[in-house]
Amino acid sequence: MTVAAAARPRGRPPRFSDRRQDVLRAAARVFSRQGFRQATLEDIAQSLEMTRPALYHYARSKDLLLAECASIADTQLSAALEEAGREPDGLAQMRAFFIRYAEIVTDDFGRCFVLTDGSEMTPSVWERMRGSQLRLGRAIADMARKGMRDGSVAKGNAVDISLALFGIFNGMARWYRPHSKRKPAAIAADMLDAVMTGIGAGRKR
Amino acid sequence: MTVAAAARPRGRPPRFSDRRQDVLRAAARVFSRQGFRQATLEDIAQSLEMTRPALYHYARSKDLLLAECASIADTQLSAALEEAGREPDGLAQMRAFFIRYAEIVTDDFGRCFVLTDGSEMTPSVWERMRGSQLRLGRAIADMARKGMRDGSVAKGNAVDISLALFGIFNGMARWYRPHSKRKPAAIAADMLDAVMTGIGAGRKR
Repeated sequence: MTVAAAARPRGRPPRFSDRRQDVLRAAARVFSRQGFRQATLEDIAQSLEMTRPALYHYARSKDLLLAECASIADTQLSAALEEAGREPDGLAQMRAFFIRYAEIVTDDFGRCFVLTDGSEMTPSVWERMRGSQLRLGRAIADMARKGMRDGSVAKGNAVDISLALFGIFNGMARWYRPHSKRKPAAIAADMLDAVMTGIGAGRKR
Repeated sequence: MTVAAAARPRGRPPRFSDRRQDVLRAAARVFSRQGFRQATLEDIAQSLEMTRPALYHYARSKDLLLAECASIADTQLSAALEEAGREPDGLAQMRAFFIRYAEIVTDDFGRCFVLTDGSEMTPSVWERMRGSQLRLGRAIADMARKGMRDGSVAKGNAVDISLALFGIFNGMARWYRPHSKRKPAAIAADMLDAVMTGIGAGRKR
């Protein structure tokens, strides 16, 4: 699959107008910053220097905007998973996935995907986002199991490994400040080195 | 310091009545489950099968309740830090701290401390909670540095290590389901084994 095709949301029109894309990005930013529940369409309009009626042309409700933002993040994450799957062993697959994951969740759509709490959403949006999360979690646990078979990953609990790695990089969505000197991919590579070769200085068991 | 003294909030009366403790625990639970912003005093009263006026005797506002819950969590976390500081080397200190951290953040007060978003709080409560978080983060980075000096921790970025470990266990506050068969301390021990000896099967660099 080409990068362009991978970036295209499935089951929905393949192209958004640039303006619509701007609106979605602004919405993701406002949701992440203020929290979905507190944010208003007025806040989004203001951040775009748009009137509320003009915004209405692109966005009928907060719930729809959140669903669109989540769908973009989901598409980016699916592409990351597919890309990582081409690496030769389980450890390299996890490493490639989480470097890309760090980039996605420190950018607007992914950040909104990670930071928006399930309790704030309508059940249908929450179900879809929860579904994406579970699918990703299973995919990484599968990579860990594959790594245990191919000898790249130390024997252990594959679900623990998956949860630990998502914990590290979901945390990054919270503490990373945009425009930091060290880029998300570089931070992720360093953190993955640390936990993959071991924080401790001792020998492997 | 004795355990009893460590469990006593600083600068406030040393004892809460049992009923007040029940109210605080119920509040922490409701805040974690529904999100602080959405939760109402009515929800807390209901969860205690108490009338709203009876609750008012113990709690004047949500903000005060949150501040009290955060203060209890902070006291538990300070005790965990002090306890961990008695371990012989930096790696053992981090390990001891995060096993206790996992227990705290999967229980009511700690869970509320981790899950409540800064954007939902009044600035004074947020400042205090943020202060606690920063203090803990610095303390763990110090343990990592100590470990690099005493030879127990592999050379690397101490702040990265601190952020990665908090990411793992703050994540646990989200996904851990109470009454799971494997207890938080056991899960934490397994996860710490994995990231301290290394998820990868290769030799240390």
